[in-house]
Amino acid sequence: MLLYDTQRSGNAWKVRLMAGLLGLPLPRRTLSIDRGDLRADEFRAIAPLRQVPVLVLDDGSVLSESMAILFYLAQGSDWWPRLPLAQAEVLTWLSFEQERHMKPLAQLRLHLGLHRDREPASAEMRHHASEARAALDILQAQLLRQGAGGWVASSGHPSIADVALYPYTRMASLGGIDLSAWPRIVDWLARIEALPGYQALFPGQPELNLSTVESTAAS
Amino acid sequence: MLLYDTQRSGNAWKVRLMAGLLGLPLPRRTLSIDRGDLRADEFRAIAPLRQVPVLVLDDGSVLSESMAILFYLAQGSDWWPRLPLAQAEVLTWLSFEQERHMKPLAQLRLHLGLHRDREPASAEMRHHASEARAALDILQAQLLRQGAGGWVASSGHPSIADVALYPYTRMASLGGIDLSAWPRIVDWLARIEALPGYQALFPGQPELNLSTVESTAAS
Repeated sequence: MLLYDTQRSGNAWKVRLMAGLLGLPLPRRTLSIDRGDLRADEFRAIAPLRQVPVLVLDDGSVLSESMAILFYLAQGSDWWPRLPLAQAEVLTWLSFEQERHMKPLAQLRLHLGLHRDREPASAEMRHHASEARAALDILQAQLLRQGAGGWVASSGHPSIADVALYPYTRMASLGGIDLSAWPRIVDWLARIEALPGYQALFPGQPELNLSTVESTAAS
Repeated sequence: MLLYDTQRSGNAWKVRLMAGLLGLPLPRRTLSIDRGDLRADEFRAIAPLRQVPVLVLDDGSVLSESMAILFYLAQGSDWWPRLPLAQAEVLTWLSFEQERHMKPLAQLRLHLGLHRDREPASAEMRHHASEARAALDILQAQLLRQGAGGWVASSGHPSIADVALYPYTRMASLGGIDLSAWPRIVDWLARIEALPGYQALFPGQPELNLSTVESTAAS
């Protein structure tokens, strides 16, 4: 297998995190947006959706979208439950992440944290902040329903829903969202980081230091 | 089973369409946004994500998010393929629909078609139109790759990815998007509408006539 990623993409981080938690070696080709790698012919040829992450399997099959890659990697493990109803519950939270959680948090991080090209008080950023807070409220309410030590879905073991929801939640502060207002989320993040095989965004570097250049080191 | 829906929701339409295509009777409780039903205690008690569709199973279990409901209903049918790699490909397109396809098309339809509260030339609507066209380009390119008579994913049978991508694509014209620019998509829509069990948005009414009041008729 070969993972096409970028170092900073939260969606790619999900895949590296999943591989680490599964103890699965995952060779990487780390692309640079600044260098134009995502517009290059090599990447366009394999990526119909024109986004990282993309996973190329040993038989040449290509998987796009983090949700699909997490699903595939987790097959046969406790990270994807056995029963259809429990599987459907995991999909509920994967869908929530893609539809309502990721976008506002990613937009805040991009414009306020990485590019610094917008004001937090602008209408666009206030809209994203409102949507991000609503999504975090929903996530915290779910963690409260699951009880102390619980995970996002109900199978009793963390699932790919936890993996999918972790990266953009963890990076919320880079977009100006103070997570201390959601203590159950802070607790849940810490429990994920204590799991064997956890992967930081920048291995060997201060956690979530995003001021450095892209790294092409394999994980 | 009991489906909580609204008549106009594209996400709820996916579920009614899936049930029809599977030949599955699906009693409905059709809510009215105008009447405030989605803010009422009865709905809030069962809907942690505060959105339709919600499916209540006979044992009292509750499923939210159209993707999860389609997955659950399609278990054991040809609409959910057997092999993990084929399943992952279906998830790729379900994710694409939730993340990049639905939102711009739904926003255009809401503001230009239903509420008529924005101008097509406004920056916000032009942004959504640009994103909608990019999503339709990606969908058409995938249908071209799949060949004549092909479906969104590769299993040889239509899948829940076709069901998920159908409603908001079909309603694109209500948001000012002229689908004749994407002839392979027009062909694909017609092939879905020719399938046994197909369900229109408003049964017994002119197709896509959205000027009528909500109906509570069972499908």
